[in-house]
Amino acid sequence: MTRQIKIDEDLYIGGNEFIIIAGPCAVESEKQMDIIGREFYRLGIRIIRGGAFKPRTNPASFQGLGFEGLKILKSLRDSYGFKILSEILDPRDVERAYEYIDIYQIGSRNMQNYALLKEVGKQDKPILLKRGMNATYDEWINASEYISQEGNHNIILCERGIRTFNSYTRNTLDLMSVPVMKYKTEYPVIVDPSHGTGRRNLILPAAKAALAIGANGVLIEVHPEPEKALSDGYQSLSLEEFKKLLEEINAMKSALKIN
Amino acid sequence: MTRQIKIDEDLYIGGNEFIIIAGPCAVESEKQMDIIGREFYRLGIRIIRGGAFKPRTNPASFQGLGFEGLKILKSLRDSYGFKILSEILDPRDVERAYEYIDIYQIGSRNMQNYALLKEVGKQDKPILLKRGMNATYDEWINASEYISQEGNHNIILCERGIRTFNSYTRNTLDLMSVPVMKYKTEYPVIVDPSHGTGRRNLILPAAKAALAIGANGVLIEVHPEPEKALSDGYQSLSLEEFKKLLEEINAMKSALKIN
Amino acid sequence: MTRQIKIDEDLYIGGNEFIIIAGPCAVESEKQMDIIGREFYRLGIRIIRGGAFKPRTNPASFQGLGFEGLKILKSLRDSYGFKILSEILDPRDVERAYEYIDIYQIGSRNMQNYALLKEVGKQDKPILLKRGMNATYDEWINASEYISQEGNHNIILCERGIRTFNSYTRNTLDLMSVPVMKYKTEYPVIVDPSHGTGRRNLILPAAKAALAIGANGVLIEVHPEPEKALSDGYQSLSLEEFKKLLEEINAMKSALKIN
Amino acid sequence: MTRQIKIDEDLYIGGNEFIIIAGPCAVESEKQMDIIGREFYRLGIRIIRGGAFKPRTNPASFQGLGFEGLKILKSLRDSYGFKILSEILDPRDVERAYEYIDIYQIGSRNMQNYALLKEVGKQDKPILLKRGMNATYDEWINASEYISQEGNHNIILCERGIRTFNSYTRNTLDLMSVPVMKYKTEYPVIVDPSHGTGRRNLILPAAKAALAIGANGVLIEVHPEPEKALSDGYQSLSLEEFKKLLEEINAMKSALKIN
Repeated sequence: MTRQIKIDEDLYIGGNEFIIIAGPCAVESEKQMDIIGREFYRLGIRIIRGGAFKPRTNPASFQGLGFEGLKILKSLRDSYGFKILSEILDPRDVERAYEYIDIYQIGSRNMQNYALLKEVGKQDKPILLKRGMNATYDEWINASEYISQEGNHNIILCERGIRTFNSYTRNTLDLMSVPVMKYKTEYPVIVDPSHGTGRRNLILPAAKAALAIGANGVLIEVHPEPEKALSDGYQSLSLEEFKKLLEEINAMKSALKIN
Repeated sequence: MTRQIKIDEDLYIGGNEFIIIAGPCAVESEKQMDIIGREFYRLGIRIIRGGAFKPRTNPASFQGLGFEGLKILKSLRDSYGFKILSEILDPRDVERAYEYIDIYQIGSRNMQNYALLKEVGKQDKPILLKRGMNATYDEWINASEYISQEGNHNIILCERGIRTFNSYTRNTLDLMSVPVMKYKTEYPVIVDPSHGTGRRNLILPAAKAALAIGANGVLIEVHPEPEKALSDGYQSLSLEEFKKLLEEINAMKSALKIN
Repeated sequence: MTRQIKIDEDLYIGGNEFIIIAGPCAVESEKQMDIIGREFYRLGIRIIRGGAFKPRTNPASFQGLGFEGLKILKSLRDSYGFKILSEILDPRDVERAYEYIDIYQIGSRNMQNYALLKEVGKQDKPILLKRGMNATYDEWINASEYISQEGNHNIILCERGIRTFNSYTRNTLDLMSVPVMKYKTEYPVIVDPSHGTGRRNLILPAAKAALAIGANGVLIEVHPEPEKALSDGYQSLSLEEFKKLLEEINAMKSALKIN
Repeated sequence: MTRQIKIDEDLYIGGNEFIIIAGPCAVESEKQMDIIGREFYRLGIRIIRGGAFKPRTNPASFQGLGFEGLKILKSLRDSYGFKILSEILDPRDVERAYEYIDIYQIGSRNMQNYALLKEVGKQDKPILLKRGMNATYDEWINASEYISQEGNHNIILCERGIRTFNSYTRNTLDLMSVPVMKYKTEYPVIVDPSHGTGRRNLILPAAKAALAIGANGVLIEVHPEPEKALSDGYQSLSLEEFKKLLEEINAMKSALKIN
């Protein structure tokens, strides 16, 4: 049985729910987040993702707004009631970020950053643990144990693609990890088609497959102006495209009687 | 637009159809095929797969019944009207196999066996071209061009998983190839969850994901007694399991209004 | 003990020998081969490689001169006494090519082309069996068994790189296969740094490493005018560069007391 | 030109030097380290490696002695004058470990742990930066830039194998990274055959190939009793085996006129 992770009074990840978490790759400005916040509120989105600390391959790339970014996210929570999912990179930031973040994200590069895993394991908030780019299922489970052994069992696994010789897609989305990890662990599994494919036109088909295969949700990158995004614009949906995705996924959920 | 490949008077692969092709990994005996044939006929299966020439990694493994196996398949066609999908390994066998086979299968190991591709390209029967274990999308397309340049455009692409570091599943099923190849080519794409996962309990979830992502069908290994199969029993469904899969897939097809 | 494969009266592959086999990727013309032949004769090269049947990914690429190419190679053998290494793609060509070829090459794409392996296994000439692009050591050994079970044990293994996520080099040259395969089999192992790296400036360092790790030789692509080569020019050495490589390798052989 | 990294008054990594760094995977006890220290002193080893903080895949595995382990290493430095190479996992430990460590090691799992990279970049001691298990050359360079942009240019790169489908060796040692990284950066490159192969009998051939291809040294795991080692014993040499390796490498160095 998949554990249900409580996110809010009436909001869980796990069980027969398929949740759509969305937001920009990086928090860039109050204005950007305000456009997204207003629109998401109308669309019924409950959890917003947004990167404040960005683990960029190249140190010369935009590194995120840091705690300024978290403050912008917090103001969205205050205005609209969203729950906030955001990535943390440094064990020294975990406690300080506590008041801004509702779900701590551990990114792919840090799946085996044990100092960080232990630190979030000490918190009483849920953790979204992304699969490492070259992690086996067992290594992913081992990483979750670094968290749970500190007392925190509210773990959400997130498949985001593995690195293979195939370079047409940014990564190779391994959708089989959904049934496998649900069989091997008690944790809900969600899918990140944005990083998993790296191509805007593959996000909807990947999300549909994620739904059909039994995932507990998807994580979608959305940007008001993808072509101007400071990171990962090529894999971000515009608000229009996101609305279309929501409609199609909701229709499919209702056809398949999934909540 | 996906090309519709005519298989029989009223039977096509492509378009808004999702076809289920099934059968044993290897044709082993008349008796085995007779059990399958009778059951499949009742279940409405139209295309049977069955290997007569088996490309086994180890030369000491069962290599298939050869033309004797093709004759058994032909007798099923004569009795029940099935169409026959079977793999061919040697260009010298292509013409001789013509009378027994309705769809020539080119297996993963032979995706770049150009002598074989050219030979089947000269035939007027459809070709099912499996993706090579380490083939990029473009190499797969190039392989299809070795067939089509000989005049045969009735090509069905089959995703069967790629080889990655992940060894829990036999291969890593790359479901993104379905939308990508349908975008890049005019050919229908079907999915082989049996080889793609190598695990009986992952076949149904993989088939559902294939359906949701827009594949034109699946290729399923079925054996009356999987535990006694001469090859790949661990990834073959029993007839009972296959019936259950059919029911679930048919329910999903009907919910999603796919034929 | 590594088997010594007899190539000529006084020429073996295996044992404490490190042989340099060289030649163009593809035989393009009599003139090209004549330039190479004269120079190689002066340099003491004993075995020439040259492709007559080219397994090109794209069917629109130059496919080789076929038997015309083999005839050109034969005339070099007649003039200078070279032994000829050339690839064969189609089991139907094996016997007809017998008179032109001294060592049959099975290329990477055909490592699991069992019809072809069996056919060369019936011949009484040595076989150079390249490792498949995604072959494990055991699969490579299994492929050699398809040859040896037909009676031909004169097999030379050739490491040519495997496909990984690393795309800076054309393939990832797996030099560890040299000690592993010499431990697991009785066959000599040579290394192909040209395909293994796909970069002219990496060929010499790769060849040195091959020598140091115990390989029985290297296979080097050389072209009189690499920039005009009909295939793989970017990884071919000019005659000048090849002479420099020979000098460096010979100096290293003599320092390390290898023949 | 490869930068020469000063380690001691008369000891550099880089240039025409080939250095052998050795020691146990993990520091386990004073007694273990004392046996190694006395023997290494006799053998002329100048830099000892030894893990105090062990990044183990499984949280239930031995995690290292932590600062107790570093103290043991320091006492070896005090007694014999060794320089100490040891891995650090947590940015919060970097300053505190400063007095014990002469070369900070960043392990494969942490190649993209940017908080850690920045922290060691602020120190005035050399950094050994291991390649990530699935890192491209450019990502490895980018990681080095996270260090150098903080002011520390004393970086030693260490190839330790990449993850591929080949599971016979623990990783696939990519020796081509040596000439590539020396061409693309100014940093010395050393090779870790212990992690790169994961098999005791492949360490010597890998070390020879590393020497021949132009590496600036090797990192070898040695344990007084490999079969009792608390981690990675199967890839550790005994002191006897290590002496034999030293002899063979020294003979090869002298034949090739490398210091």
